Amino acid sequence: MIPRILWKAAVVLSAALTLAVALNADPGALRGQVRAYRSAHEQEIVRELADFVALRNVAGASRDRADIERNADHLIAMLQRRGIAARRLTAGDSPPAVYGEVRSPGATRTVVFYAHYDGQPAEAADWGGDPWKPVLRAGASPQAREVDLAAAGTLDPEWRLFGRSTSDDKGPIVAMLAALDALRAAGAAPSVNVKLFFEGEEEAGSAHLTEILRAHRDLLAADAWVLGDGPVHQSRRMQVVFGARGVTSVEMTVYGPVRALHSGHYGNWAPNPAVLLVELLSGLRSSEGDIRIAGFYDDVRPLIESERQAAAAMPPVEEDLRRELGVAWSEGNGGRLQDLIMRPALNLRGLKSAQVGDEARNAIPTEASASIDFRLVPDQTPAKVRERLEGHLRTQGFHIVSEEPTLETRRAHPRIVRLTWDTGYPGARTSMDLPASRAVLQAVEEIAGESLVRVPMLGGSIPMYLFTDSLQAPVIIVPIVNHDNNQHSAHENLRLQNLWDGIEVYANLFARLGVVWR
Amino acid sequence: MIPRILWKAAVVLSAALTLAVALNADPGALRGQVRAYRSAHEQEIVRELADFVALRNVAGASRDRADIERNADHLIAMLQRRGIAARRLTAGDSPPAVYGEVRSPGATRTVVFYAHYDGQPAEAADWGGDPWKPVLRAGASPQAREVDLAAAGTLDPEWRLFGRSTSDDKGPIVAMLAALDALRAAGAAPSVNVKLFFEGEEEAGSAHLTEILRAHRDLLAADAWVLGDGPVHQSRRMQVVFGARGVTSVEMTVYGPVRALHSGHYGNWAPNPAVLLVELLSGLRSSEGDIRIAGFYDDVRPLIESERQAAAAMPPVEEDLRRELGVAWSEGNGGRLQDLIMRPALNLRGLKSAQVGDEARNAIPTEASASIDFRLVPDQTPAKVRERLEGHLRTQGFHIVSEEPTLETRRAHPRIVRLTWDTGYPGARTSMDLPASRAVLQAVEEIAGESLVRVPMLGGSIPMYLFTDSLQAPVIIVPIVNHDNNQHSAHENLRLQNLWDGIEVYANLFARLGVVWR
Repeated sequence: MIPRILWKAAVVLSAALTLAVALNADPGALRGQVRAYRSAHEQEIVRELADFVALRNVAGASRDRADIERNADHLIAMLQRRGIAARRLTAGDSPPAVYGEVRSPGATRTVVFYAHYDGQPAEAADWGGDPWKPVLRAGASPQAREVDLAAAGTLDPEWRLFGRSTSDDKGPIVAMLAALDALRAAGAAPSVNVKLFFEGEEEAGSAHLTEILRAHRDLLAADAWVLGDGPVHQSRRMQVVFGARGVTSVEMTVYGPVRALHSGHYGNWAPNPAVLLVELLSGLRSSEGDIRIAGFYDDVRPLIESERQAAAAMPPVEEDLRRELGVAWSEGNGGRLQDLIMRPALNLRGLKSAQVGDEARNAIPTEASASIDFRLVPDQTPAKVRERLEGHLRTQGFHIVSEEPTLETRRAHPRIVRLTWDTGYPGARTSMDLPASRAVLQAVEEIAGESLVRVPMLGGSIPMYLFTDSLQAPVIIVPIVNHDNNQHSAHENLRLQNLWDGIEVYANLFARLGVVWR
Repeated sequence: MIPRILWKAAVVLSAALTLAVALNADPGALRGQVRAYRSAHEQEIVRELADFVALRNVAGASRDRADIERNADHLIAMLQRRGIAARRLTAGDSPPAVYGEVRSPGATRTVVFYAHYDGQPAEAADWGGDPWKPVLRAGASPQAREVDLAAAGTLDPEWRLFGRSTSDDKGPIVAMLAALDALRAAGAAPSVNVKLFFEGEEEAGSAHLTEILRAHRDLLAADAWVLGDGPVHQSRRMQVVFGARGVTSVEMTVYGPVRALHSGHYGNWAPNPAVLLVELLSGLRSSEGDIRIAGFYDDVRPLIESERQAAAAMPPVEEDLRRELGVAWSEGNGGRLQDLIMRPALNLRGLKSAQVGDEARNAIPTEASASIDFRLVPDQTPAKVRERLEGHLRTQGFHIVSEEPTLETRRAHPRIVRLTWDTGYPGARTSMDLPASRAVLQAVEEIAGESLVRVPMLGGSIPMYLFTDSLQAPVIIVPIVNHDNNQHSAHENLRLQNLWDGIEVYANLFARLGVVWR
């Protein structure tokens, strides 16, 4: 059972206070206490996670709303069981975020710890069983032997708990709560005021997040946000992440004759839209990745020295990756992966015109389409990218339309391109030189040691802008789950060692952030 | 009933001989006689065609062989009914070609008239009825009123007979035979020895044609071949065609990583095969149609003056076509259609990589494919085109493979392209300056008048090389059927006026070729 002592009650005891201060000043001793607590409570911790995972938590659709409400109730009970005042935060008809607060007397900083309790859709057919029936397995494979948790005795740290959201993000939530339990058991209090904010529709696109953050601006006021979403480095080393690229995408179609034409009778005369598309695309970027759209790089915020150094220190992965991926070269004029993914990227993700292979016919196609996704870096915005691409295409003589062009339009304009943009969102990058950034880095490094990977910006996209645009606080990601967790796919899982490490990391953040923050 | 008098018996009558010579010297009078014969026998002629069309004639597959044999029997009977010695020509297990001969005493030239009696596959579902149940309709539409031939009285020349092969090529065969009947009725004999050669597997690719031509080389010896395949000009004007472009095609695939990669985590670093393909393709031709493959135009035989003049005299179609096709420009740097289709063409007929539209994913594709057809002109060959394209790609650093590359191959070569070529065939162009060419032009012009369209070379591909490669004789196409005959599609039809005109054209060729040939 988890002790139900209130923090207030705990910290009025001066002996405990002294111990707490001592522990807060000694990360090595603190870690020993946290580890001892965890060792003694492994079954309880995994059981709490399994019970939470057992609740179906697909976000977004109204038919799934009752599931999300049930998860929120369960999570509030988990907080209340620990004596943490917990409540729902909503805006309009939004699904509930769950909020809890642990105040630390004397703390001068406040940090919000974020994770989400909703999960991706999952199909029993893909999983070979119910995705919300958590199963502990003696290994990384979904075929690994099933372990009876209650009868297991000592848990092997390489075992994994399988089930939707074990890693993304119910595992991190349980790690945060277990970290608080461990601190309390050790008689140590957080050195910052801790606010817990658990979102309920992240996997459905966080449609109400901005609204909720704004509606509860005062309640959520903080000196920093720490996000517990995402995985650690592929090398299994811990990482702290300060940014992520944004994303936007566009579908483009260019037009030829209104009907497919015999390539013999009309070839060389009738405009071939596939050729036009190729010409258009070859003007957008080189095979090395350099984007040729005028002004495209104008809004790119230069990296600062600490970001460059952090990138340079990241583990080399290129040679292994090339081997694994069966490629003899990589783009970027020989640059390193971590440097290249901090630049904006134009990815040609799809091409289509008429047919290839056995279905191909000797005809001039009527249209040709390409699909492109852009990865954006600060301070680029989807609106600016759109403006620049459209300006570029106009310079190339293209008439831009947003709907299927009429016959009259086709007769009037030699080059027509239809563009369909998604909304997209900008990238975000928190400076590694901020006091909050330095404090988080130090607190995590005290656990992770030399191997800590400092990531100025992820290549992938996380809507960090939802936080950075709405909040006045720095936002930093401290992920704990294994990189091979099958996030968003079948057989999502959490490696127990990652859960154990996560508890130590979060405990250290709670206990040390206020101490090392200068 | 068609008279069954033998030519030999006819021509021994000296009065008739005198008349024949007179008619052969007077195309106007001859035409009057032929037209009078046709007017008196319209029902018979259409009935003979309808009876022939009623025989299913899909070529190629062994299950259809009995149909083809039945058609050959029927066609031999049609010839024999006219007193023409007819036989099958085969080579190995080929379907039969049907051969007949009409010798003309005193003739010094021999001309083979070619058509094919097999037809394209056809589905009742597409036709809204049996494609081999000929139907006479009072108009061009398949919805036009059905006419009872037996009860029709005078036939409107705008009526059309619907059914598979009415135009392609059973109509031309019946026109040739009716032309012989008309000559005979007028007491006129052909001025050349006429050989009739009717192929039985043209629509299945003429797999045995070369073999048959070679096996019966002596029998088929001639001073010229006249092919009755294909349609007249879109303007409904008669045309004589001296060449056709050849064709070949290639499928190409370039390769990226062995599995699709997250475009955020790897975009800018992992090689994007769609971008590589775009780069490859943009090096092959311009949007104006100019082919950038080194040496590609080296084998192009220059046009001679008569060919240039003939092309220049062809009716302008560009403006109407652009309007109809909904295009505001055409390729070829402003050149005219008939000039451009006498040049080799590279048509990008298909593109494919991953997905576009709603199915698109933010991933770097594993491969990208293009499908290309080439139209060739004399003296290009598919082998040369292949050699040149492959040389060009090697110059661009591509490693060429013909099968899916192994992981080792992918690791070893930065740029890999898989090429799959079809066999293809070369183009052909008979000089318009040859005596045979001049004779055919004059004989057709005597019927068609000023409006005759002289076509040095069609843009489309006809395997004329099968004849030109096997024979020592010039090959010239004299088509008669309407351009809007729905050849190869549902609702194939023959406009009666084209049949009537065709009878006059072929009759004039039979009667006049030997006279005007100098």
